[in-house]
Amino acid sequence: MSKTIFYHAGCPVCISAEHDIINLVGSENVEIVNIGLDRSRIQEAEKAGVESVPALRTPNGNILHINFGASMADVKG
Amino acid sequence: MSKTIFYHAGCPVCISAEHDIINLVGSENVEIVNIGLDRSRIQEAEKAGVESVPALRTPNGNILHINFGASMADVKG
Repeated sequence: MSKTIFYHAGCPVCISAEHDIINLVGSENVEIVNIGLDRSRIQEAEKAGVESVPALRTPNGNILHINFGASMADVKG
Repeated sequence: MSKTIFYHAGCPVCISAEHDIINLVGSENVEIVNIGLDRSRIQEAEKAGVESVPALRTPNGNILHINFGASMADVKG
């Protein structure tokens, strides 16, 4: 099983999400990559399907983009 | 420590994210709430700060909205 990777770019939202993810998953289970600093990994992130940051690459290769999906207004209908 | 809660509304993206979250955190550590079906919990979710779904409420009360943040174009600058 591949490791979980958390891609971020150092913004306050990213850092806050990083702490939350580490608390949830455990620091030994997630690699933190700051693509704002380590720009050599931007291409890898894009190839994995990262379209925005922060994003979490799960062990099965899915990308969870963290921060905006369907609005509550849409859910309420 | 409060439990992690995953709020979603039954959409395909939500279900996919639900499986990923359960795999990462463990099903015993996260409560899954479908506010599309269990509409009585919409108010609780909004009070917790959920603005879109899928969203993850972490044990410390932070809300991670899953799906769109800063674009890669922004990161690249």
